[in-house]
Amino acid sequence: MTTRYGYLGPEGTFTQMALLAWGQSHDGEHIAFGSVDSALDALRRSEIDAAMVPIENSVEGGVSATLDALASGDPLVVIGEVNVPITFVLAAPAGTRREEIRAVGTHSHAWAQVRGWMDVNLPDAAYVPTLSTAAAAAGLSGEVSQAYDAAVCAPIAAENHGLEVLATDIGDRSGAVTRFVLVSRPGTLPERTGADKTTVMLFQRHNRAGGLLELLEQFAVRGINMTRLESRPTKNSLGSYCFSIDFEGHVLDERVGEALMGLKRVCAEVRFLGSYPREDGAAVDVAPLTTDADFGRARDWLRSLRGT
Amino acid sequence: MTTRYGYLGPEGTFTQMALLAWGQSHDGEHIAFGSVDSALDALRRSEIDAAMVPIENSVEGGVSATLDALASGDPLVVIGEVNVPITFVLAAPAGTRREEIRAVGTHSHAWAQVRGWMDVNLPDAAYVPTLSTAAAAAGLSGEVSQAYDAAVCAPIAAENHGLEVLATDIGDRSGAVTRFVLVSRPGTLPERTGADKTTVMLFQRHNRAGGLLELLEQFAVRGINMTRLESRPTKNSLGSYCFSIDFEGHVLDERVGEALMGLKRVCAEVRFLGSYPREDGAAVDVAPLTTDADFGRARDWLRSLRGT
Amino acid sequence: MTTRYGYLGPEGTFTQMALLAWGQSHDGEHIAFGSVDSALDALRRSEIDAAMVPIENSVEGGVSATLDALASGDPLVVIGEVNVPITFVLAAPAGTRREEIRAVGTHSHAWAQVRGWMDVNLPDAAYVPTLSTAAAAAGLSGEVSQAYDAAVCAPIAAENHGLEVLATDIGDRSGAVTRFVLVSRPGTLPERTGADKTTVMLFQRHNRAGGLLELLEQFAVRGINMTRLESRPTKNSLGSYCFSIDFEGHVLDERVGEALMGLKRVCAEVRFLGSYPREDGAAVDVAPLTTDADFGRARDWLRSLRGT
Amino acid sequence: MTTRYGYLGPEGTFTQMALLAWGQSHDGEHIAFGSVDSALDALRRSEIDAAMVPIENSVEGGVSATLDALASGDPLVVIGEVNVPITFVLAAPAGTRREEIRAVGTHSHAWAQVRGWMDVNLPDAAYVPTLSTAAAAAGLSGEVSQAYDAAVCAPIAAENHGLEVLATDIGDRSGAVTRFVLVSRPGTLPERTGADKTTVMLFQRHNRAGGLLELLEQFAVRGINMTRLESRPTKNSLGSYCFSIDFEGHVLDERVGEALMGLKRVCAEVRFLGSYPREDGAAVDVAPLTTDADFGRARDWLRSLRGT
Repeated sequence: MTTRYGYLGPEGTFTQMALLAWGQSHDGEHIAFGSVDSALDALRRSEIDAAMVPIENSVEGGVSATLDALASGDPLVVIGEVNVPITFVLAAPAGTRREEIRAVGTHSHAWAQVRGWMDVNLPDAAYVPTLSTAAAAAGLSGEVSQAYDAAVCAPIAAENHGLEVLATDIGDRSGAVTRFVLVSRPGTLPERTGADKTTVMLFQRHNRAGGLLELLEQFAVRGINMTRLESRPTKNSLGSYCFSIDFEGHVLDERVGEALMGLKRVCAEVRFLGSYPREDGAAVDVAPLTTDADFGRARDWLRSLRGT
Repeated sequence: MTTRYGYLGPEGTFTQMALLAWGQSHDGEHIAFGSVDSALDALRRSEIDAAMVPIENSVEGGVSATLDALASGDPLVVIGEVNVPITFVLAAPAGTRREEIRAVGTHSHAWAQVRGWMDVNLPDAAYVPTLSTAAAAAGLSGEVSQAYDAAVCAPIAAENHGLEVLATDIGDRSGAVTRFVLVSRPGTLPERTGADKTTVMLFQRHNRAGGLLELLEQFAVRGINMTRLESRPTKNSLGSYCFSIDFEGHVLDERVGEALMGLKRVCAEVRFLGSYPREDGAAVDVAPLTTDADFGRARDWLRSLRGT
Repeated sequence: MTTRYGYLGPEGTFTQMALLAWGQSHDGEHIAFGSVDSALDALRRSEIDAAMVPIENSVEGGVSATLDALASGDPLVVIGEVNVPITFVLAAPAGTRREEIRAVGTHSHAWAQVRGWMDVNLPDAAYVPTLSTAAAAAGLSGEVSQAYDAAVCAPIAAENHGLEVLATDIGDRSGAVTRFVLVSRPGTLPERTGADKTTVMLFQRHNRAGGLLELLEQFAVRGINMTRLESRPTKNSLGSYCFSIDFEGHVLDERVGEALMGLKRVCAEVRFLGSYPREDGAAVDVAPLTTDADFGRARDWLRSLRGT
Repeated sequence: MTTRYGYLGPEGTFTQMALLAWGQSHDGEHIAFGSVDSALDALRRSEIDAAMVPIENSVEGGVSATLDALASGDPLVVIGEVNVPITFVLAAPAGTRREEIRAVGTHSHAWAQVRGWMDVNLPDAAYVPTLSTAAAAAGLSGEVSQAYDAAVCAPIAAENHGLEVLATDIGDRSGAVTRFVLVSRPGTLPERTGADKTTVMLFQRHNRAGGLLELLEQFAVRGINMTRLESRPTKNSLGSYCFSIDFEGHVLDERVGEALMGLKRVCAEVRFLGSYPREDGAAVDVAPLTTDADFGRARDWLRSLRGT
């Protein structure tokens, strides 16, 4: 049976590019969704088998919609990651001249990443927000008149919609990258490769002094390195936060298992969001004295003390 | 001379409500800006004297535009804060019936906060992003036809633009609050009230092990309580973060001064973003043995040891 | 077969009092040894089944001879503890008047504990060191003339040797207590009572930064409370130390097991010196979220994540 | 006026050797005392100007009498240190043959260090405790008959008393060293050399959780390295301890000053026992970002923030 892959659409988004970069997806069906929420809800209802969604951008930071959608509702797990370089083009219907552009349509996050270029090159152009960068391009290809004359979008979206590219690589930060994750329902744990990451969401207990420091010590005492930490409001009151964390290692690693147990004890809730191979394949730099062999020797010694 | 206050406009935004709630601003001039960036840039160029901008929402989290604008460029400092309860209304031109609404315009953050209500009450309505909630309302009051029939906005915006309110308090989280800060140029440090907060942005050194843990220990060892921590990408590469932190106390407090010195030593950069009174006036719960008197006694003792 | 109990003799020492306070020993044979070393060596050679030795005095601190004898050689384990109040008497042959006393014999540790009384009451008396307080008393009961006229010893020693008690309770610290431990060969682990202590000797790795702090964090992160910490030279070079530590809990407790595994990983060597009931029967004040049930729940959760 | 130096006598002790190794003392008067206590009391009463006392032995550990005498009473400070290699000889009156020796006199600490040699070479010899190693030698030189036939003492003591040396270097640990400190009344602080040590005695507050860990963090957060830690009973009750600590650096160093202030705040009492040059002259390995220059820059920055 064909595997069904959802993604944050429409066609022509960077998310679609991420899904296309995931080799195993080529034999499957690709289905665009209007929002991260709707894609993950479809996954929870088993209408699709996996969903590609953005989680972190090197310029804009964590993607709140994804972090929040993973943090509540039925559990889902990350089974892989894809990093996509983000390059923006300025595109318009064929024949449009740059000096004719009075308004530019794009998604607000994209707009934030091209502000510098716009200030220099189109200082008088108004900004018109759209649902996605691809939607901005799509709007210009139809018959309906739009409130904007040009779109900021991915090269693929300009191509998809037959637009002319007036300027390429207009992002203020060259080298911008967005990290996407492929999400699935729990049940299959990706194999341990030695170059793995684990993602969790931690909710603090209200009555614990020390707070975040106490949580980080659970990692430190087992020599585990964090690669991303985002705080997100729990939505209950101002100043009440939970933490979305990526760290190196796999749930099957001894040091990771012990750290997760420690977090489970001291947190109000730990949401395990998957262990999966790093896209770059860089082997985890395991801290001295925290290998599985080190843990194994310690466990054997403890058993001998206990006479068990 | 009249004090000039900028704010994230247009008229009718929650930010304007925050500025109106700031008593001292009533005698001043109020000037709307199209973005946080443009307001803060005007402040840096001395075109205005202060700017009210959103920094943190109880549902959506930190406001990236504000955090990033404060993190770079010429230094600015926070001199006060205002918390505004966020209540949304559904508004439309007089005579519009709910069943006629095919599309709804609003800012993307507002849309995220009314999704539940929309799914139940207007499940078929399309979403049209606008530059702000007030802009959505304004669009409906003019003569230009819009791609949406109703707006999600603040009550004041509906009133300003003569719209009819079709539903009130439609946010999915009752009790949602946005925290705004009044920003100024460095030079005047708000007086110490005993109920103060301090805001900093911390940039880690790349070659320091321990990372965030080391930074948090600088607070812990002086008994200082954090009230907000946001990680933000440094925009240099994926996984490179800095930290925006609020904590209790004033830069003139001894324990705060010593903690700041410690951070200054171990961080690549510490950006001091102001000490200012808490809006709720709740006195800081100073940890035992960390009062100014405790520090004073320790300092006197050290002087006697040194014979100085 | 009769159980053979060794103790630091001769008869009349506080160590004998500790052994007599150990109810189970009443049916066994009691054998005095001239030193802690010789008693523990006899235990290692199976010439005796258990040995009562002093480990800690409320005035003098750790008993080096015992700490060092347990730290090297074939492993031994503590199986119980006894606290004995230390009260000293001044004793002399019948008819001796206080003003005739020119020299006083006793063990150097006892002498340290009665110095204040001596300065006031017998300021001109010389001090003559003896092998034990009981030996000082014994010396006065024989026919051999001694270099001292009176002894400082336990009440029982004065009685054993028919001496007259010239002054009672002459210790400078009322309430002085010595803690004794009953040591055995490994093999039988005392049952878990909920009011237990565990004793370990920790040897640091030379190349680990953080040192003692790193070791203490292994306890802290599992909520374990230390009740004694002594540093002892490793005898290799000045400034090279190991640590003798007592902490609350039993090796069969989950939190203790995990802490011991952590120490085993980061230390060059961990010498387990036994888990045994506290003499005072005071139940361990288990820190919140560190009970066996908490660990059990965390372990079950981890198993479910791992699908094992 | 001649400087008066006290030392733990009598003549011929290792302490006298330490004082002789202190170059500045050669022009002064040297006065032997019968105990550490009596030497330090004489210093407190200004009967002498300085006192040389043992503080730490590479085999036996901390010298309790010295640690305790410094921990209470009028404040005294260490102004220098001397390390003396400890070598023992077996000495007896001329003509004594080894096989005639039935009992050996020496101080109990010395006995502990030659037990291995004795077990092999004089297994049947009894041990007779004496007040000092030098006193053991002195006893054999007089006319009074002693309970022992040979002494274990320093080479100098055998020579002083005209005894014949039957065996040299009989210590079980070659390379044994005792560290002595020269103690004075407060008032003169030795100059900062860059190769300094500081000694303190720390008394914990009873109501502080975390205990020793909290104290060690005060050092760690300022990058300070401990070189010795001894726990000593406070003498109030079993299990109540204070800590005698040596660490690298001088009270005039910024990082040391801040750490001492932190300790002063969190401890019930901090007893400053002096900053003085290391005997080995090894420059302190200052941790990155904790130099005086680092502290100075942080302080200047804080002043600019405060506008002071």
